[in-house]
Amino acid sequence: MRPSGRSFNEMRDVTLEPGYAKHAEGSCLVKFGDTHVLCTATWDETTPPWMRGEGKGWVTAEYGMLPRSTHSRMKREAKNISQSGRTQEIQRLIGRSLRAVVDMKKLGERQILVDCDVIQADGGTRTASITGAYVALKQCLDWGVTQGIIKQSPLVDSVAAISCGLVNGAPVTDLDYAEDSTCQADANFVLTGKGGIVEIQGTAEGDPFSEEQFTALLTLAKNACIELKAKQDAAL
Amino acid sequence: MRPSGRSFNEMRDVTLEPGYAKHAEGSCLVKFGDTHVLCTATWDETTPPWMRGEGKGWVTAEYGMLPRSTHSRMKREAKNISQSGRTQEIQRLIGRSLRAVVDMKKLGERQILVDCDVIQADGGTRTASITGAYVALKQCLDWGVTQGIIKQSPLVDSVAAISCGLVNGAPVTDLDYAEDSTCQADANFVLTGKGGIVEIQGTAEGDPFSEEQFTALLTLAKNACIELKAKQDAAL
Amino acid sequence: MRPSGRSFNEMRDVTLEPGYAKHAEGSCLVKFGDTHVLCTATWDETTPPWMRGEGKGWVTAEYGMLPRSTHSRMKREAKNISQSGRTQEIQRLIGRSLRAVVDMKKLGERQILVDCDVIQADGGTRTASITGAYVALKQCLDWGVTQGIIKQSPLVDSVAAISCGLVNGAPVTDLDYAEDSTCQADANFVLTGKGGIVEIQGTAEGDPFSEEQFTALLTLAKNACIELKAKQDAAL
Amino acid sequence: MRPSGRSFNEMRDVTLEPGYAKHAEGSCLVKFGDTHVLCTATWDETTPPWMRGEGKGWVTAEYGMLPRSTHSRMKREAKNISQSGRTQEIQRLIGRSLRAVVDMKKLGERQILVDCDVIQADGGTRTASITGAYVALKQCLDWGVTQGIIKQSPLVDSVAAISCGLVNGAPVTDLDYAEDSTCQADANFVLTGKGGIVEIQGTAEGDPFSEEQFTALLTLAKNACIELKAKQDAAL
Amino acid sequence: MRPSGRSFNEMRDVTLEPGYAKHAEGSCLVKFGDTHVLCTATWDETTPPWMRGEGKGWVTAEYGMLPRSTHSRMKREAKNISQSGRTQEIQRLIGRSLRAVVDMKKLGERQILVDCDVIQADGGTRTASITGAYVALKQCLDWGVTQGIIKQSPLVDSVAAISCGLVNGAPVTDLDYAEDSTCQADANFVLTGKGGIVEIQGTAEGDPFSEEQFTALLTLAKNACIELKAKQDAAL
Amino acid sequence: MRPSGRSFNEMRDVTLEPGYAKHAEGSCLVKFGDTHVLCTATWDETTPPWMRGEGKGWVTAEYGMLPRSTHSRMKREAKNISQSGRTQEIQRLIGRSLRAVVDMKKLGERQILVDCDVIQADGGTRTASITGAYVALKQCLDWGVTQGIIKQSPLVDSVAAISCGLVNGAPVTDLDYAEDSTCQADANFVLTGKGGIVEIQGTAEGDPFSEEQFTALLTLAKNACIELKAKQDAAL
Repeated sequence: MRPSGRSFNEMRDVTLEPGYAKHAEGSCLVKFGDTHVLCTATWDETTPPWMRGEGKGWVTAEYGMLPRSTHSRMKREAKNISQSGRTQEIQRLIGRSLRAVVDMKKLGERQILVDCDVIQADGGTRTASITGAYVALKQCLDWGVTQGIIKQSPLVDSVAAISCGLVNGAPVTDLDYAEDSTCQADANFVLTGKGGIVEIQGTAEGDPFSEEQFTALLTLAKNACIELKAKQDAAL
Repeated sequence: MRPSGRSFNEMRDVTLEPGYAKHAEGSCLVKFGDTHVLCTATWDETTPPWMRGEGKGWVTAEYGMLPRSTHSRMKREAKNISQSGRTQEIQRLIGRSLRAVVDMKKLGERQILVDCDVIQADGGTRTASITGAYVALKQCLDWGVTQGIIKQSPLVDSVAAISCGLVNGAPVTDLDYAEDSTCQADANFVLTGKGGIVEIQGTAEGDPFSEEQFTALLTLAKNACIELKAKQDAAL
Repeated sequence: MRPSGRSFNEMRDVTLEPGYAKHAEGSCLVKFGDTHVLCTATWDETTPPWMRGEGKGWVTAEYGMLPRSTHSRMKREAKNISQSGRTQEIQRLIGRSLRAVVDMKKLGERQILVDCDVIQADGGTRTASITGAYVALKQCLDWGVTQGIIKQSPLVDSVAAISCGLVNGAPVTDLDYAEDSTCQADANFVLTGKGGIVEIQGTAEGDPFSEEQFTALLTLAKNACIELKAKQDAAL
Repeated sequence: MRPSGRSFNEMRDVTLEPGYAKHAEGSCLVKFGDTHVLCTATWDETTPPWMRGEGKGWVTAEYGMLPRSTHSRMKREAKNISQSGRTQEIQRLIGRSLRAVVDMKKLGERQILVDCDVIQADGGTRTASITGAYVALKQCLDWGVTQGIIKQSPLVDSVAAISCGLVNGAPVTDLDYAEDSTCQADANFVLTGKGGIVEIQGTAEGDPFSEEQFTALLTLAKNACIELKAKQDAAL
Repeated sequence: MRPSGRSFNEMRDVTLEPGYAKHAEGSCLVKFGDTHVLCTATWDETTPPWMRGEGKGWVTAEYGMLPRSTHSRMKREAKNISQSGRTQEIQRLIGRSLRAVVDMKKLGERQILVDCDVIQADGGTRTASITGAYVALKQCLDWGVTQGIIKQSPLVDSVAAISCGLVNGAPVTDLDYAEDSTCQADANFVLTGKGGIVEIQGTAEGDPFSEEQFTALLTLAKNACIELKAKQDAAL
Repeated sequence: MRPSGRSFNEMRDVTLEPGYAKHAEGSCLVKFGDTHVLCTATWDETTPPWMRGEGKGWVTAEYGMLPRSTHSRMKREAKNISQSGRTQEIQRLIGRSLRAVVDMKKLGERQILVDCDVIQADGGTRTASITGAYVALKQCLDWGVTQGIIKQSPLVDSVAAISCGLVNGAPVTDLDYAEDSTCQADANFVLTGKGGIVEIQGTAEGDPFSEEQFTALLTLAKNACIELKAKQDAAL
């Protein structure tokens, strides 16, 4: 029995609210249960210096948490000298995931910056971020088409993400904080709408796990990402 | 005629939503029109090192803006080495304003940390922050009473804030971004529920202003803060 | 009775020594009693990147304190990662005050950098800085005229500043450290030679204050700034 | 055909030289072909502040690259404000991998710090680091037993790591730099001597990959780690 | 012929003004011609953490330059992330020089912090700093005796410093900026009142120099430091 | 008797291994006994911004220590905000020493960056670095000639360095860590192959030293540098 009463392959309530932010070219407030993330996508007519002149675009992401998005207050990262390793890992993951579904030549020499800011956290903030960021990104790219800046959307697929893990020895879908902090293993899967694998990150929190256990997690993730794709399509 | 069509002494729609954040001991989502700020108050059983052993408490504030809360995306402060001068000025102002209505001896050796994070900005974020932060602070202090940690609330008054300014030569209340960026003078007033002045910050953006003009702004501010107090009382 | 024996509306001895620094285009050693600040003005033929091409100039200020300018030694800011909030607030105030009396179009695309370094502190360092900085600025701008870089001085007025406060319930002029650390309220006023208000910053250190009390402080400030203007004129 | 002429499941020449560093309690110079990493393990009788009093120990890792370990010189990280996201990701991975094979209660309230410094890089520095770090860690823990500080080694298993990837559509073992920079997908596997999975990190560099492709990489990794374990045993 | 018209072994006008700073336990405004340095010494009843419990004291120094002490304005170091290598080299040199004449056991577990801040620079700031810092240090230690904190001064000798160099092939004493920026070789000598050598730092700016040339510089330095000692004695 | 059993004028075993690093244009692993430093020289077709357009080149150096190169582990500098004063002093010294033997006009508008990374430390790391850096630099410049980028090597002399000191009252050559940490005085000498002096840095660690003692150290250094030059010539 899971703490939330969900069945082993049941996600939390997922909602996607595109257009939440007034100023951004694309935005989405995504909720995976009590995990709420505001994703905004900014159209930028410049590219990073290291790729100028290559005729290609770029998509990058930044991630942050409001100080009291968590149960105990976290120190504001702006008061540190640098972002934590965890923050950097997550924003690199979000960026890679989004780039996997964009044709950079079609985007041309411009950049989309996606900000994922956690308003409230209850586990799974990185997978909620990727799922919501795709919606904000699509809205932003469609804006570029509508504005006549680009002729057609450079998206080649959709992308969503889910965490699955071993809790009390059993594979389950979409860990919340209570499960995340006690699980034996935790894996994040980033999958495209066509079913391809973009990223897999599996970590044994306690004992090492087996290939069979890992395969079971992957199967759960595939099913969850089909559901998430349907919700993304419905929201847009 | 003001850009928004408001009359000279008319505030924007103000809403205060206490308890917005699940994890915080006190919270309030405050909206002054399109300016939205999430205020959370955190109960902390420690005090800053420099005041330990004095039998008194402390209230402090931090302020931040989401990168795309503004029309053009702002660089995330966590990517800088330090917070900007503007950020520090605002969070110092919020902290002083809240401390003015708390009896620190009654609070005892503990600290309330108030975070004001701007979700969307359209002018007046610092005055909205103070007005909403008071609601979060009160909720947090009441939580301390309910939990039996303190016997009674150490609040001695309420506090709210408003910006007034000279726009096209005329004094007006509650500047939005369109007015804020073109006004001749801009002043922020922090007033208590009993009508005392806690802070006055007036700046000539263009030509210097006169004492008479300044007095007119103060009069507008007093009336606005009476309205804000009524909304704070209603929300709590 | 004030600790220094001064009457309620009596400033400390004020001296202004222009040309104190050998290398700078403009400079002034200003003393308000035991508060000594070295102000230097540097002519810079570039402007900040964000305003290039607008045909206008800029005036900016930086503020610092020698480590043992204070009673207890302060940590050298160069050993911190960033300047303190107080330092940034003060240098932003000095910059705004000076810009209020300069016609930026007449200055043209160049910048004056004013450094205010506190050699010795006894309260009122920011108001002494503004008063002395004006003298350094004028000397620097006159240098530009003499050198033939600009045709005429872009100054449109003079500017000076004074702090007034409520000490033992009574309004007094030009607080020294003994008064500053025990006053009920403290306000800094920046006024032009023609009597216009550039900046007002009033803070209740203890109980909130009333409009009447604030008006009394403003009256004291106006008189003091008339005296300061006379001293500035005499020094130049 | 691979650029190096190796067969698809052939690792580079791997050597492990324990005791390379004179001062460290444990050390190993590990070479995977032209990738050379110096791993040192330091015995530290303190634990991080956040885990004191829990009766448990800790193992942590840091990672660095000499500036000219790479083909083009890299900027020295000591000249930046903070370590890069890549550095932090790698050192977090090394730390987690080592902790997976240590019984922290048996280690007691002390810490082992493992430094992995890349002397020369040719792809696969993180997997070489983990493989060599295990040898340095074991030597360090054995030193603690020999010194009589702990009664028995807290190691519960061994650990090694290998990267596998899809190159020209085919799964291959132990990518060197030439392959790493052109592969379709790249996955790092951290496996214990008993065959358990500690970490999996798979990334599509180009098109998404399929479950079948991923399974093929895992199979290659399992075989490689059996070989690596034999080399670790022989070296110690 | 030297640019200043001085003879080869002639120092600039040197003045030492003890007690210049109101708040410090010891202070001295030292002038070597147009090079002006304010030295203050602060009595601190703590020692650095790494030497606590050893029954010994410590003397340390910090060095800074006002932004417009130089011909072109220098960037304020408080605006950088860290002090420059030059600043650190100089303050380490001043600290070592002062420690060479203090009996740390007699000082006991306390620390003297000496700040040397350059008000105006015209070459030789580090040697002027050391010469003035000794006067501030002596005044500070005498204050400790007068206050009854220590029984007797822990000074065992005096210390002064001078730069000598090869200008147009000839050895000269006390380089000013015009000479310093064009000399063939530059050497700083720190000598005690009893004639012992504390520090020698010689650098070829152009061609290497010979042992004979170096010996000539040392001879000039010895004579100059005898003069400086006489001025230190006269000032105190 | 010296701790190592060496006679007073006997260096440790010195070896120089050019070409140690695969990727660098020039490199040398230098060993002075148990002090091991990897020196690499990087050819860079740009010069620092402040010297562009002058038709001259530049040589600069960076210095680092692996965390466990020392007996107790040192904190990794990449985890600090800035390099230590000691690191900066040493890398400035190495850079000046190398520049003294290069004709910058012949080098042309390009830069050689030399990295000296201490793999293992046992005293004398800066003098070993300079001695090995010269070999890496020469190899790098010869590479430029071979590649046809420059017509002839811009080297005008060779350079080597040695530390000498007063140990138990006697002058000795090439201090190891045991001597370095207990000596009365320590001096580093940088001499050219033709016998010119480039740098002298002498410091009294305990009592001041005399001119006679200093001359004895210089004589030892001259002899040692003749030996070092022979080894450099043999290695190249």
